[in-house]
Amino acid sequence: MKKILLLGAGRSASSLISYLLDNAPAENWEVAIGDINVAHLQPLVEPLAFAKTITFDVHDTEQRAQEVNAADLVISLLPAVFHIEVAKECLAQEKHLITASYVSAAFLALHEEAQQKNLTILMESGLDPGIDHMSAMRVIRSIKAAGGKLTTFKSYTGGLVAPESDNNPWNYKFTWNPRNVVLAGQGTAKYIKKGQYKYIPYHKLFKRTDTFYVEGYGHFEGYANRDSLSYREPYELLDIPTMLRGTLRRQGYCEAWDVFVQLGLTDDSYDLDGSDQMTYRTFVEAFLPPASAATQSMAERISLYLGIPADGDVMQKLEWLGLFEETPVALAAATPAQILEKILKEKWTLAPGDKDMIVMQHQFGYTLNGEQREVTSTLVAKGDDEVQTAMAKTVGLPVGILAKLLLQGKITRRGVVIPIFPELYEPVLDELEAYGIRFVEKEVVGEKAG
Amino acid sequence: MKKILLLGAGRSASSLISYLLDNAPAENWEVAIGDINVAHLQPLVEPLAFAKTITFDVHDTEQRAQEVNAADLVISLLPAVFHIEVAKECLAQEKHLITASYVSAAFLALHEEAQQKNLTILMESGLDPGIDHMSAMRVIRSIKAAGGKLTTFKSYTGGLVAPESDNNPWNYKFTWNPRNVVLAGQGTAKYIKKGQYKYIPYHKLFKRTDTFYVEGYGHFEGYANRDSLSYREPYELLDIPTMLRGTLRRQGYCEAWDVFVQLGLTDDSYDLDGSDQMTYRTFVEAFLPPASAATQSMAERISLYLGIPADGDVMQKLEWLGLFEETPVALAAATPAQILEKILKEKWTLAPGDKDMIVMQHQFGYTLNGEQREVTSTLVAKGDDEVQTAMAKTVGLPVGILAKLLLQGKITRRGVVIPIFPELYEPVLDELEAYGIRFVEKEVVGEKAG
Repeated sequence: MKKILLLGAGRSASSLISYLLDNAPAENWEVAIGDINVAHLQPLVEPLAFAKTITFDVHDTEQRAQEVNAADLVISLLPAVFHIEVAKECLAQEKHLITASYVSAAFLALHEEAQQKNLTILMESGLDPGIDHMSAMRVIRSIKAAGGKLTTFKSYTGGLVAPESDNNPWNYKFTWNPRNVVLAGQGTAKYIKKGQYKYIPYHKLFKRTDTFYVEGYGHFEGYANRDSLSYREPYELLDIPTMLRGTLRRQGYCEAWDVFVQLGLTDDSYDLDGSDQMTYRTFVEAFLPPASAATQSMAERISLYLGIPADGDVMQKLEWLGLFEETPVALAAATPAQILEKILKEKWTLAPGDKDMIVMQHQFGYTLNGEQREVTSTLVAKGDDEVQTAMAKTVGLPVGILAKLLLQGKITRRGVVIPIFPELYEPVLDELEAYGIRFVEKEVVGEKAG
Repeated sequence: MKKILLLGAGRSASSLISYLLDNAPAENWEVAIGDINVAHLQPLVEPLAFAKTITFDVHDTEQRAQEVNAADLVISLLPAVFHIEVAKECLAQEKHLITASYVSAAFLALHEEAQQKNLTILMESGLDPGIDHMSAMRVIRSIKAAGGKLTTFKSYTGGLVAPESDNNPWNYKFTWNPRNVVLAGQGTAKYIKKGQYKYIPYHKLFKRTDTFYVEGYGHFEGYANRDSLSYREPYELLDIPTMLRGTLRRQGYCEAWDVFVQLGLTDDSYDLDGSDQMTYRTFVEAFLPPASAATQSMAERISLYLGIPADGDVMQKLEWLGLFEETPVALAAATPAQILEKILKEKWTLAPGDKDMIVMQHQFGYTLNGEQREVTSTLVAKGDDEVQTAMAKTVGLPVGILAKLLLQGKITRRGVVIPIFPELYEPVLDELEAYGIRFVEKEVVGEKAG
């Protein structure tokens, strides 16, 4: 009997919970699920003798210590900010830990102690970061094994709405924390192209996109992530001349989103005066230069200010959001980003039955026997509905599979680990295929490549 | 005998030092000048029985306490960050203090204690802030006294190069801390126009300028300061529908500066990789999208990227700076802003004999007897040379005059005070005229105004 403690049972945990409960009998697991709110899990868990829910408050240090003590393995899907306290508790009580979040400096500092105590803290084990590492490393390793030399690696991931549930001109709905979508890309994006570092300031990020095509799904565009380069070392690509990691959207999204950036609507650094008295229209008005004539429409003014057509696709997207209507904002002391998030949430929330879609594409360029080659590795995964989303599956299932491998003793690496090693990613990628999470590789040789 | 301790004897202190030494005999002052480096003052001070220099280290708390103890009045022209410690020492030892810096929250917290101890902490007593308050308040008070109602107040100040020393296409040289010039405007500018708050993000700031004309000096342009509105209360303009404070440059400067902003060259938030290996050209290259053809020139690429002519005035300004040359950057772990500052310093430093020029213009709109009126109040002040600059005069002289008034017992306001009261600004503005620092008012009545 092995005891698993899962902390965090929010929206993105649904698939992981299913996986743990499905595998528990055969694996001889007891599963405890802790969250501040567990009422919605009662119907699922109550009939099962091997599972229970716990009303869990991460700030309650006594409860935290007690529950960790009762477990053999802790999985945390809590907001990333809480992981470090959980990790310290796990170290103190000598328990393994798995999360889907980035390795922060605070975690790196725990590496040695974890190794000394023969513990694994397995991070970046979800979708992005997670599946991106695993699927990229599988291809990189196979190219290198064949004697190829990598010259280009670009990798894009996006959480989108599936075509069959796509009924808006942005071709987008929220499938992840809306706040993070609104604030995405702030700062400076850095990548490397033909051996030269390139820096893209935020106000140019959504203009400098790449476009690409996925067979059966049409065109997408990608904008660069803030840090494309820190994975050169773990991926063993230190000398690669071109490397970029990015976020993927449907074609046309970035040009329209750029209007928000240009106006200043994504700024989260100050409160607007009298935001509770604003309407969507006066909110936008506050960021426009004064009208040169009283007869000018909002569309005309935005068109003049930002140099976009007054009646094109971009303006249609803005109008569809209701941005120019006198709808009350009804938020006190709000930042521009908070108001924009509220406006978008009203339009971009998955409706009952809506399916989301994850698209991930890796693009590799390499030379082999003097020939320039290109291979793409693409994942398209769809959700079942607005609860069992593709996002929940692709985040939760790799975590669940890694938990199984760890409890089976098949993962022997200790310390703070990310899934870039074959003994981790091979079994995970193999098992994911059973859930329809499968990468398709396509190779281009010769002229067209590069 | 009154003892004055002046802390900070850098470039901007030259006129204040002259003023203090000139007035000392008649006013019966002893003047002590403290700075980390006072060697350059020896020839000036040594012959004078009533003056001395002190090698002063603001971090030496013992020395600080001792020197403040020996003074009746402390004047600080140290970098603003050091003022608060000096102020606390002054409070502890019950001495008056004058600075040319902004009242920060930390200073506001000293207001009551200063009042209780019958002390004056006189802040914002230089040019901007300082003369701007004084000259604006004089006009505002006279409009109100005549029964006028203010509808618009715009105020612009710029430190520029005088026409006779202006020999570069930017029509600009540094007359103030270059780092502050490079970072100017970062954040979001806020103002009010016809009763509506307006917000300008940094990447739009240098595009949204106002243009105006100063008789005898030609055209200027102004961009909005970060906070135009916090002076509505002290100026007693709480209900004014339009108010903007800004920075003034020669026409054409802002459009060219905007290229730096758009590229990302003014960013001070991260270090560039390998900055010590860069040249000016590769520095700019790092912020450009990859060339679409090897034959494209830098000017063509910037033109395409930012939508400016490849052979116009803006590009001429960039080329004149040597931005496209292979000159080594020779700075390790530098931010973009640090490299840009270095490039600009090589070109924008006042040469021996060069004269700088301060231009300040207030624009008031008001109604009087049902009539719309407009009045401008304009200061143009030139330096004598690259040491006795207009900047040094306009920062130092009002501080010196206020020091005299305070020691003469003519300033009775206590606590943290800024010079917005007639008993402070009237005598200062009057005495400044003797130094050629004089505002010219021009009134427009009727149709043209508004």
